[in-house]
Amino acid sequence: MRENVKIAIWGFGAMGSGMARMLLKKKGVEIVGVCDMHPARADRDMYEVLGIERGDRKPVIINKNIEEVVTEKCCDLCLCATDSFTQKAFPRLKYVLEKKVNVISTAEEMSYPQAQNPELAAELDRIAKENGVSILGTGINPGLIMDLLVVCLTGCMTDVEHVEAKRVNSLSPFGPAVMEEQGVGITVEDFNNGVKDGSLAGHVGFSESIRMIGDAIGWNVEKLEQQMKPIVTTVDRKSPYGFAAAGNVAGVNMTGQGYVDGEVKIDMIHPQQIEPEMEGTFTGDYITIKGTPEVNMAIKPEVEGGLGTIAMCVNMIPQVINADAGLKTMLDLPVPRAIMGDMRNMIK
Amino acid sequence: MRENVKIAIWGFGAMGSGMARMLLKKKGVEIVGVCDMHPARADRDMYEVLGIERGDRKPVIINKNIEEVVTEKCCDLCLCATDSFTQKAFPRLKYVLEKKVNVISTAEEMSYPQAQNPELAAELDRIAKENGVSILGTGINPGLIMDLLVVCLTGCMTDVEHVEAKRVNSLSPFGPAVMEEQGVGITVEDFNNGVKDGSLAGHVGFSESIRMIGDAIGWNVEKLEQQMKPIVTTVDRKSPYGFAAAGNVAGVNMTGQGYVDGEVKIDMIHPQQIEPEMEGTFTGDYITIKGTPEVNMAIKPEVEGGLGTIAMCVNMIPQVINADAGLKTMLDLPVPRAIMGDMRNMIK
Repeated sequence: MRENVKIAIWGFGAMGSGMARMLLKKKGVEIVGVCDMHPARADRDMYEVLGIERGDRKPVIINKNIEEVVTEKCCDLCLCATDSFTQKAFPRLKYVLEKKVNVISTAEEMSYPQAQNPELAAELDRIAKENGVSILGTGINPGLIMDLLVVCLTGCMTDVEHVEAKRVNSLSPFGPAVMEEQGVGITVEDFNNGVKDGSLAGHVGFSESIRMIGDAIGWNVEKLEQQMKPIVTTVDRKSPYGFAAAGNVAGVNMTGQGYVDGEVKIDMIHPQQIEPEMEGTFTGDYITIKGTPEVNMAIKPEVEGGLGTIAMCVNMIPQVINADAGLKTMLDLPVPRAIMGDMRNMIK
Repeated sequence: MRENVKIAIWGFGAMGSGMARMLLKKKGVEIVGVCDMHPARADRDMYEVLGIERGDRKPVIINKNIEEVVTEKCCDLCLCATDSFTQKAFPRLKYVLEKKVNVISTAEEMSYPQAQNPELAAELDRIAKENGVSILGTGINPGLIMDLLVVCLTGCMTDVEHVEAKRVNSLSPFGPAVMEEQGVGITVEDFNNGVKDGSLAGHVGFSESIRMIGDAIGWNVEKLEQQMKPIVTTVDRKSPYGFAAAGNVAGVNMTGQGYVDGEVKIDMIHPQQIEPEMEGTFTGDYITIKGTPEVNMAIKPEVEGGLGTIAMCVNMIPQVINADAGLKTMLDLPVPRAIMGDMRNMIK
């Protein structure tokens, strides 16, 4: 049997460390290096940072310097959990590809970089091919819930007229960074200013999800629109890391539309807030596709975003290693699947 | 741009003719030949049989003789809608592959022929490779609802403990052949005799779905079990083609289990009956996956079986043409998707 699948991790925050935890429970795979600059983690043993017994495994010292972590062909794949935007991630992804190492990126925009950065997407494809490796961006959303799953469900339809993907999720499990990014607890005025000056990101991924669906089924999406509105609470809401007083912002309601032939044919609805149940909102993922036959899908409660992203990135490792060289999207590869056996058995 | 995608259809019953109807509404694809022996259809023009205006398209005369329909490289792909079982379909599939034509089969067992006919599966793989073409079996179920969709949803899980796939569907839209196959209207005694002597088929596909899930996620399924029980109605039920008097059989409840490490880890539940609402049964497709995070999915009502199978087979045409040579399953290919644009744009 072949050697263990060898993985490097770049970025050891909630996502990167979560992937490490998941990988350490799997067979036939090992973590050979971790790069992270955070002073609380750099230069410490990964097992110690994770609070996991190392046993007889070799220590993995978290290194600030990527050049010492990812060297030419040092591993099969590098999980890059550093960015949300393609432009910011690009030099990092380029670095890894040029070391002839496959890449999975958590950057939301990288799930379909063709949508907003077609030149960088073409460049990544070229670099990957030149170096004989492949690169994929994925996660729970974009990556599965509001795009790949929609596409997959259209597979049983003879005709599609309209797609609505709705993800109603709770921000309660998330930490202070997410509270701040989503404007939890601030006033409506501050929220509106944050939307105007771009300091509130909200959900990143509608352009990617909409283009992915359109390109998959052959709809030419000629225009995209997106709205971001505060979810104002009428009661005090408290979560482990967030608090929104009555009258203030409990989260963000994001909506987006894809126009095909002058009509809205793809609708995205994605309200995210802390403690949604306090005002009667029940979380879930909903896909409603008009056409023949109609498909009305619900996942209740919603698939948890953090764990979901961790799982999607780790579970796609074999598909990315097996893929021919170049930039891949979830549309190009076999379906994601859990890895309950030896990962080596999944490598061609 | 390349020429139209050229399709032949073998078997022009409900499935084959439904695929023809669907294909005739699509761009960039044409039907170049149809083979069917049924006296009501043979030697007639396909358009006339379908009741569709031919316009300026060339007539397609339905031919009883496959040798006159599928000749070497006469088309890109042949849709084979003739059988349910691999063994029966095998000589037909072999014939088409040896003409260097790609194949999609509706035979339920062909969705994962590795499950019950591993030798024939290996043989089909060999023949397909020798002739530089590929072959896939698919449909709504097996093919999507109780297997591929399950697999896809495990993709967002770090760990899977138990899978339950439940398809509660109505047989009311189906014709007399299905009524007979499923025992609708007969007495419980006749039903039990039919199960004993094998004349009642029930749903074909549990072995395929269970093995597909197990192989996909790396569970070694060491044992499969299957049960087939009558659904006895307490009221008279009437559908367009079926009638079950109170006390008689309104349909079939099929259940199946896949054992992993001595435990049932995959549960299949598939009751099919006419007019289920008359006794408070509401149709739907339900996937419940225990593990981390849990996934509870429902599609209500269920995806209609007939249209769903037609769509799955047609929608997978580009993926099968694009695939490298050999026997493929839904696990090997990119996700199914509707075809709303020109099919030629989906061919590599």
